[in-house]
Amino acid sequence: MPSQRHDNRKPDELREISIKRRYTRPAPGSVLIRAGRTTVLCTASVEESVPPWMKGKGRGWVTAEYSMLPGSTSPRKARERGSKVDGRTTEIQRLIGRSLRAVVDMEALGERTITVDCDVLEADGGTRTAAITGAFVALADAISSIEKLPDPKKSPLTGSVAAVSVGIVDGRAVLDLDYVEDVEAAVDMNVVMTGSGKFIEIQGTGEEATFDDDDLAALLKLARGGIKRLTAMQKESLGRQWPL
Amino acid sequence: MPSQRHDNRKPDELREISIKRRYTRPAPGSVLIRAGRTTVLCTASVEESVPPWMKGKGRGWVTAEYSMLPGSTSPRKARERGSKVDGRTTEIQRLIGRSLRAVVDMEALGERTITVDCDVLEADGGTRTAAITGAFVALADAISSIEKLPDPKKSPLTGSVAAVSVGIVDGRAVLDLDYVEDVEAAVDMNVVMTGSGKFIEIQGTGEEATFDDDDLAALLKLARGGIKRLTAMQKESLGRQWPL
Amino acid sequence: MPSQRHDNRKPDELREISIKRRYTRPAPGSVLIRAGRTTVLCTASVEESVPPWMKGKGRGWVTAEYSMLPGSTSPRKARERGSKVDGRTTEIQRLIGRSLRAVVDMEALGERTITVDCDVLEADGGTRTAAITGAFVALADAISSIEKLPDPKKSPLTGSVAAVSVGIVDGRAVLDLDYVEDVEAAVDMNVVMTGSGKFIEIQGTGEEATFDDDDLAALLKLARGGIKRLTAMQKESLGRQWPL
Amino acid sequence: MPSQRHDNRKPDELREISIKRRYTRPAPGSVLIRAGRTTVLCTASVEESVPPWMKGKGRGWVTAEYSMLPGSTSPRKARERGSKVDGRTTEIQRLIGRSLRAVVDMEALGERTITVDCDVLEADGGTRTAAITGAFVALADAISSIEKLPDPKKSPLTGSVAAVSVGIVDGRAVLDLDYVEDVEAAVDMNVVMTGSGKFIEIQGTGEEATFDDDDLAALLKLARGGIKRLTAMQKESLGRQWPL
Amino acid sequence: MPSQRHDNRKPDELREISIKRRYTRPAPGSVLIRAGRTTVLCTASVEESVPPWMKGKGRGWVTAEYSMLPGSTSPRKARERGSKVDGRTTEIQRLIGRSLRAVVDMEALGERTITVDCDVLEADGGTRTAAITGAFVALADAISSIEKLPDPKKSPLTGSVAAVSVGIVDGRAVLDLDYVEDVEAAVDMNVVMTGSGKFIEIQGTGEEATFDDDDLAALLKLARGGIKRLTAMQKESLGRQWPL
Amino acid sequence: MPSQRHDNRKPDELREISIKRRYTRPAPGSVLIRAGRTTVLCTASVEESVPPWMKGKGRGWVTAEYSMLPGSTSPRKARERGSKVDGRTTEIQRLIGRSLRAVVDMEALGERTITVDCDVLEADGGTRTAAITGAFVALADAISSIEKLPDPKKSPLTGSVAAVSVGIVDGRAVLDLDYVEDVEAAVDMNVVMTGSGKFIEIQGTGEEATFDDDDLAALLKLARGGIKRLTAMQKESLGRQWPL
Repeated sequence: MPSQRHDNRKPDELREISIKRRYTRPAPGSVLIRAGRTTVLCTASVEESVPPWMKGKGRGWVTAEYSMLPGSTSPRKARERGSKVDGRTTEIQRLIGRSLRAVVDMEALGERTITVDCDVLEADGGTRTAAITGAFVALADAISSIEKLPDPKKSPLTGSVAAVSVGIVDGRAVLDLDYVEDVEAAVDMNVVMTGSGKFIEIQGTGEEATFDDDDLAALLKLARGGIKRLTAMQKESLGRQWPL
Repeated sequence: MPSQRHDNRKPDELREISIKRRYTRPAPGSVLIRAGRTTVLCTASVEESVPPWMKGKGRGWVTAEYSMLPGSTSPRKARERGSKVDGRTTEIQRLIGRSLRAVVDMEALGERTITVDCDVLEADGGTRTAAITGAFVALADAISSIEKLPDPKKSPLTGSVAAVSVGIVDGRAVLDLDYVEDVEAAVDMNVVMTGSGKFIEIQGTGEEATFDDDDLAALLKLARGGIKRLTAMQKESLGRQWPL
Repeated sequence: MPSQRHDNRKPDELREISIKRRYTRPAPGSVLIRAGRTTVLCTASVEESVPPWMKGKGRGWVTAEYSMLPGSTSPRKARERGSKVDGRTTEIQRLIGRSLRAVVDMEALGERTITVDCDVLEADGGTRTAAITGAFVALADAISSIEKLPDPKKSPLTGSVAAVSVGIVDGRAVLDLDYVEDVEAAVDMNVVMTGSGKFIEIQGTGEEATFDDDDLAALLKLARGGIKRLTAMQKESLGRQWPL
Repeated sequence: MPSQRHDNRKPDELREISIKRRYTRPAPGSVLIRAGRTTVLCTASVEESVPPWMKGKGRGWVTAEYSMLPGSTSPRKARERGSKVDGRTTEIQRLIGRSLRAVVDMEALGERTITVDCDVLEADGGTRTAAITGAFVALADAISSIEKLPDPKKSPLTGSVAAVSVGIVDGRAVLDLDYVEDVEAAVDMNVVMTGSGKFIEIQGTGEEATFDDDDLAALLKLARGGIKRLTAMQKESLGRQWPL
Repeated sequence: MPSQRHDNRKPDELREISIKRRYTRPAPGSVLIRAGRTTVLCTASVEESVPPWMKGKGRGWVTAEYSMLPGSTSPRKARERGSKVDGRTTEIQRLIGRSLRAVVDMEALGERTITVDCDVLEADGGTRTAAITGAFVALADAISSIEKLPDPKKSPLTGSVAAVSVGIVDGRAVLDLDYVEDVEAAVDMNVVMTGSGKFIEIQGTGEEATFDDDDLAALLKLARGGIKRLTAMQKESLGRQWPL
Repeated sequence: MPSQRHDNRKPDELREISIKRRYTRPAPGSVLIRAGRTTVLCTASVEESVPPWMKGKGRGWVTAEYSMLPGSTSPRKARERGSKVDGRTTEIQRLIGRSLRAVVDMEALGERTITVDCDVLEADGGTRTAAITGAFVALADAISSIEKLPDPKKSPLTGSVAAVSVGIVDGRAVLDLDYVEDVEAAVDMNVVMTGSGKFIEIQGTGEEATFDDDDLAALLKLARGGIKRLTAMQKESLGRQWPL
């Protein structure tokens, strides 16, 4: 086992994180989040209607889309146009949507749809977890922009959400894998939690490997610590817009 | 909390399981698995080539496809033809493929592809986990049918794999949810394990809910018990073809 | 000319036929039909609406879809997803739909749509004709399940329908070709008839060959005999549900 | 029963037919065929290769495509672009291809592909049969243009092919239905025959109706007479290029 | 520089042009235009409705589609079906639509849609400009066929439109390039003008070359002369239907 | 006519332009260009192969793709996935590709492909011209990154290219239209020129309007002035990498 990680981080150390709000102007929520070199633009748009099957129920909807720009990786990633379907993309955007919906009170939102687009400008591992963490901030800004909520005193946000990856690399549990670590990981796990420390989603996969209860415990402990720090950064970024 | 489950099962009780091998003849592996009313036909076909990007490396490949027949649900489910793409389908077939690959030694398999098709004839909850459990048996039969393995003394199978769902329904952790329970579940988790008790995959989701460490521990304990019994049924079904 | 068929059948002999009703539960009609090894699951679902262009006319609609499971043939047949279109599939499902509609009184059915899905579990020749014969039984069960017909005393079924293939193999007219015979046939003909002996559809094709009036007469005679026996089996299977 | 057909034709009378060769220049076969107002441009192009699965076998291939221009009907017919698939189009172009291949000796053609495009400029019933009759003439011209046949003394054409529709309209069997008759027909049948009087294809359909042996005999007699006259016109049009 | 063009035309000479109205009957406007060997069938159909986003505004819409028949070129051009998208086709049909709309008063047209289909039967350069010139004549005929215009005294046509290509070939500016010249052209420009001499569209492209102000002036002068003559032919063809 | 433009610019004044190189790391060329609020990320990737139809000719290829992020406009723009095809997108990316190729010596580039992706982060008019101007800088950086050019002394770049829009708004010719002006413009023209002042492309369209020779002259003069300044900014940004 090497004495340390390839970029000198400690096992429980996050990459350098930055969260920049109001990066573009057309969408009411627009956040550029960076975790190391991983860069994701999260924009949250509000539409004053819901999908047909939800009409007339007084409830809103939150959905997400995820995409990587062709130049975000090397070699270049072909654009998903035409009939080609990328299963990974589908999985990720469903995960982001579920994670955000776990902290939204759809009745308090009213009959409108918020779409959060997570477009990866540069990919260096952990794009889906960075997307979730940034998407929450964009979502909070988009919700703040809504003028007529059903009950102005009741926030549609019931909590905050952040996400991080953990994994077993070189036989050791580590936090916030970059691309180099991701490729080498024997076990790869994405954890989504609320700011109050409850699980929303756990997705752990042994890539040509398996893992036992002790591994699982070590990974979840690292994730919990990372998410605590990410939540603090979200709170600082949102300032008075922090909804809780 | 009601005193028992709607179908009178105990919290740690599986539905009635049956595994029928050689259900159809064209594919070397053909297994009809039933878990309660959930019915999945798993066929494993062998092709003596690998995808272009794998050629010449002496390694094989195992992949899976999943589909629900239109009449497997009520109301009828539209066929996935044309350009419509169902994200759920994509997620499930990727999960099945990863789960099977975790117990296959690709070099021992040699340059060939095994495709396992899991077609749901009747859906009553737990189709993806039934598919994985049945697919392993079909895969074992397909591998037995291969005449020229790279090393006849070395089985390409390094273990067995089975899967089961667990969840929190009416505030109680239960094993092997049927459709009625699945709809009501606050937390839904699919667990894939080897016959030797190691995790391959954990996918736990709070559906408009969250869960804590105690919930997680209870769910994993139920899953471990269920998979132990499913593994025993796979072993009995395969008899002398049991590879381990 | 060989003295007999490769499976020892006489020229006018059907393969062994079985018709199993209520094979799955979600759809009101669910029939597993086997003709030799050819196995087709026919499910008939009822939807209480009609396509937009038929609304408000008081008439129903019957349509069919046909598909082969990937494992139903060897080598495996790729799934028809995405933009790929299989002309053969289209032709077959149009044929099944037309054949069923020929015995349905759409006004007596009322404004609802019955979709009959014919999914081939194993293909050994004659899948389209087996599908029609089984689909009729599923259709009859689906119609029996409808509670509010426009006129409870008037059955929407005006007759029964069954189908069989005939062809010229090794210079001899034969009934109910299996795959081996189908490949060798110089002329291939599918005949759809009512239980009362009227033609609904004749589709005869010389495959790199032609045929004359005498060939045609011999083929139609065989078909008429086969359909008489298939109709008797449908009647026995449906018992008191036999609509005529 | 009305005393005569709506356009005053006798039951066994064809519409006015014209066959114009060399209508456009890029393709070696280019035929504009008219039957009454039905107008089809048939172009036959030669490509010096065969589909991958046929390579190296010394055999050629003949295929056909069929399409209706948007302005060929009223109301306008939407163009078949994008993912929309028209089952009728598929059926028709498969029929045209099979019909032409029935009179081509693929070894005498050599490893090349002839594609015959049948584009309907105006549709007034019988477009598929007009397409087959015109396509044969375009095919003959395309074959004449080939400089290096495997055996210059052996024509790849083993016969001629023509097609016509027949049907039961107002209770009477009639030849060569136009659109008005087609809509009213109780039975509709397309017959494809060689110039020497053998059947290549019979496709008869009862549209919400059935038919018996006498009907069939009457229809086939009309078809045989019509095809004899169409063959004579093809022969006159091709003159010295008539291959037989 | 060669002393003359490959087909002996002078630099400012159009190819032989013919405009044939009422070529087919289903669409109210149907024009076959030829420029040399380039042949385009332009049909204009009227539908008594507008796209959803235009409803209730009392304004009409004019749109165009463009396609090349497979046999219009050598080698054969594959049909644009399924998911394949041809950017050139899209560009051309957008250009035709914009050009026609520039001379239509949408309020005088009333809430209806005119679709002009331009299908190329033979392509020898200049298909898009021939399509525009022919489409205007078909449009005029389609408009004449409308019985209930909002104001019978006010024509929806505010002018006429014609188009021609110009280019620099062998260092010399020339009018109305055929295919041979088009391939050799260093600069290729399509000019669309009204009959009264105003520009509607200029699209000039240096193909692996650039051009300066003098080149531009020379090209525009040629185009203006050509369009004057094309307008005269449109006027002669339409006779009393000439709308201006 | 208002006395000035809505944002107080003079008719011949560009918006504030910034060009930021090396914005992301995976692609060798990565440029973030802003023109007012319009923001485009241009990344240029190098692949050491060419499309099949260009192989073995010793020549390279340059192509471009263009896309708008969903959050780049308000209301949100749906992603171009699946079978939907946007003609505008196709036109723009073809224009960008042609413009770049006009200044590349494909033999000096050698057999490799450079793909320039232009992804619009925020759209406020003039995205296609900003994309071209930024794409050239990304292209220059990508070319600088190539280690083995056929002739190290011969740059594949034969010139520079920049683009700008001009139009007639409120009866006055203006330079570099933003979205508000674009919507109001009677004439809209995009001009692409080399740094040495030659035209590469002129695309001028009268939107429900026409224009005459004087309008054209005024527009081209404005464009020439704007491109001169844009070229100076490109040169300053590239510094020693300026290829000319």
